[in-house]
Amino acid sequence: MRAVVRRGPKLVLDEMAAPEPGEGQVLVKTLACGICGSDLHALHHMDQMASMAARVGGESRMDPARDMVFGHEFAAELLDHGPGTAKTLKAGTLVVSVPGTIGPDGPETIGYSHRYPGGFAEAMVLSEAMLLPVPNGLPAAAAALTEPLAVGLHAVNAAALDEAGLAVVVGCGPVGLAVIAALKARGFGPVLAADFSKARRDAAEAMGADIIVDPAEQSPYGRWRDFGVAATSAERGMALLAGAPAKRAVVFECVGVPGVIQAVLEGLPVGGQAIIVGVCMEADRFEPGLAIMKHLDMRFVLGYTPDEFAASLGHLAEGRIDAARFITGSVPLAKTAQAFETLARPDHHIKILVEPGR
Amino acid sequence: MRAVVRRGPKLVLDEMAAPEPGEGQVLVKTLACGICGSDLHALHHMDQMASMAARVGGESRMDPARDMVFGHEFAAELLDHGPGTAKTLKAGTLVVSVPGTIGPDGPETIGYSHRYPGGFAEAMVLSEAMLLPVPNGLPAAAAALTEPLAVGLHAVNAAALDEAGLAVVVGCGPVGLAVIAALKARGFGPVLAADFSKARRDAAEAMGADIIVDPAEQSPYGRWRDFGVAATSAERGMALLAGAPAKRAVVFECVGVPGVIQAVLEGLPVGGQAIIVGVCMEADRFEPGLAIMKHLDMRFVLGYTPDEFAASLGHLAEGRIDAARFITGSVPLAKTAQAFETLARPDHHIKILVEPGR
Repeated sequence: MRAVVRRGPKLVLDEMAAPEPGEGQVLVKTLACGICGSDLHALHHMDQMASMAARVGGESRMDPARDMVFGHEFAAELLDHGPGTAKTLKAGTLVVSVPGTIGPDGPETIGYSHRYPGGFAEAMVLSEAMLLPVPNGLPAAAAALTEPLAVGLHAVNAAALDEAGLAVVVGCGPVGLAVIAALKARGFGPVLAADFSKARRDAAEAMGADIIVDPAEQSPYGRWRDFGVAATSAERGMALLAGAPAKRAVVFECVGVPGVIQAVLEGLPVGGQAIIVGVCMEADRFEPGLAIMKHLDMRFVLGYTPDEFAASLGHLAEGRIDAARFITGSVPLAKTAQAFETLARPDHHIKILVEPGR
Repeated sequence: MRAVVRRGPKLVLDEMAAPEPGEGQVLVKTLACGICGSDLHALHHMDQMASMAARVGGESRMDPARDMVFGHEFAAELLDHGPGTAKTLKAGTLVVSVPGTIGPDGPETIGYSHRYPGGFAEAMVLSEAMLLPVPNGLPAAAAALTEPLAVGLHAVNAAALDEAGLAVVVGCGPVGLAVIAALKARGFGPVLAADFSKARRDAAEAMGADIIVDPAEQSPYGRWRDFGVAATSAERGMALLAGAPAKRAVVFECVGVPGVIQAVLEGLPVGGQAIIVGVCMEADRFEPGLAIMKHLDMRFVLGYTPDEFAASLGHLAEGRIDAARFITGSVPLAKTAQAFETLARPDHHIKILVEPGR
């Protein structure tokens, strides 16, 4: 089959043997697969990703010197069942799946595995138990957004929104937009979205953000009082004494570059919550004393649960999130490397899908 | 009355007018008042505290150039009722109180106010509404521990202990010991306590910590697996698939110096929780990417609620926490400055009480 292979820090369109489904696995034909920011990072910094994974998981099987096929945001058509499968879903079914399976060496992340090619290839092997059929005639391109939108849903589920008066989303790239979409799908408001890029602010507005802020012109953290959030300890204390506890502030950090977390700590009022979704891989500086004096919650979130993944598919299939707003481009396998380069420069793109069948 | 006054970066025993209770306030005779680490910090770095308070609260009334009487961990005898009081408690009653009252300029923290002297003075003014009578014949010296122990209780209440397999307390100064006491009063175990100081490790053991570690000899973070806490993502994933979710790790950071938070992030396994109780007033370095890959919760805690303050008094009065283990010294007003110096050097002391009546 044809696949876009990471070979060293380059993406090469190549021929490789199609994978064969093992026990409990199925073979699928990849229809659409989104390019994720993590893919961009892994292309050039796989050594850093591998060392971080090793620190987290005790060991990492990622080897920057070996070939890898990226792609973990996919929708696919079921082609064939491997041994030991229940065959509940028929060949031809459009499916999505949490990008993981279990191989001879244990759990593997599809899209970051040397054994299992990801979605930038014509075919993949998936675990039958993790397949979700795509309902309501949702097209494959839209279904491929299930994964990145699940990341936003997970971040939103980590927040104490029942107590929140205002949610601020800092950074409106794909992650920030997924957070905004999940907030609005849940019916939460007001949502204030901030980004230096005009194109991204427009996307945030299209996604349903209620207040749009250009941080070059005004602080994203200046509107607490307008929405019942106490901005100082004294205000918070007085509200408590008055029997009407002040609402909390929630900030979703969706940028992931050094300095933003400290800015969030400075911008949050007492009792606020920071949900850290942006992945900052560099060391960063912050003031713990400030976070303590404000008794802030800081939750670092990653991924999603299988339930959240299914709920994300539901949001798309039932129209609570409009996939069309996210997809700003689609390319055949042959133009994947070029799409990576396009995405590496900030521009109007949100999500570019690779369609291996084109 | 006699009072120990902070005048510049010095403590001076001086005479001053006794405070007069205003509307809703009472006059009390201070019997015992603990010296807190924050007092030591405020003595020499009040400018830093004032600027931090201003950043948090919008403004600060702390003025390093003006006199201040410290002391917010007190027990006192009710002397007299001011105007507009209900007089529910009789003169002579032993009381404690959350160290705050409302003055003409709004809320004031007793012990960090230029208007209301704290417990290092013979008399104080308190809010009648916040008084708690000390039950069960608990002595004043023990009742004075209500406040510092409430800090530990609050930290423990912020942790997800129902899901925790092991709680690690890093740093066994007064704050760490208060956390250990609160964990054991709640019946939680196992508790692993770590400190470089032998005296503090002994105190932690006396407080009921189950496992005592000298970080110079072994890591405080090496025992997760022994108590059902998954140490890696793979272990955590496999436990979840097996239908027996792994327990979580909780670390209480009670040191408050740069570098410790990063060490906690490195030591915590995936899904762990860090409760930051130690107050680090300097800028610190950490790796957000590591915290994200482990999807850690980090909660910065400060103070306590009035309910937690009352619960802390209950723990002492009903013998669930033994005050005697905390009190390692007591001095008259005249020796307060000397006691501050003693506490500034790491030694065997946990809590030194000032007894203004001695």
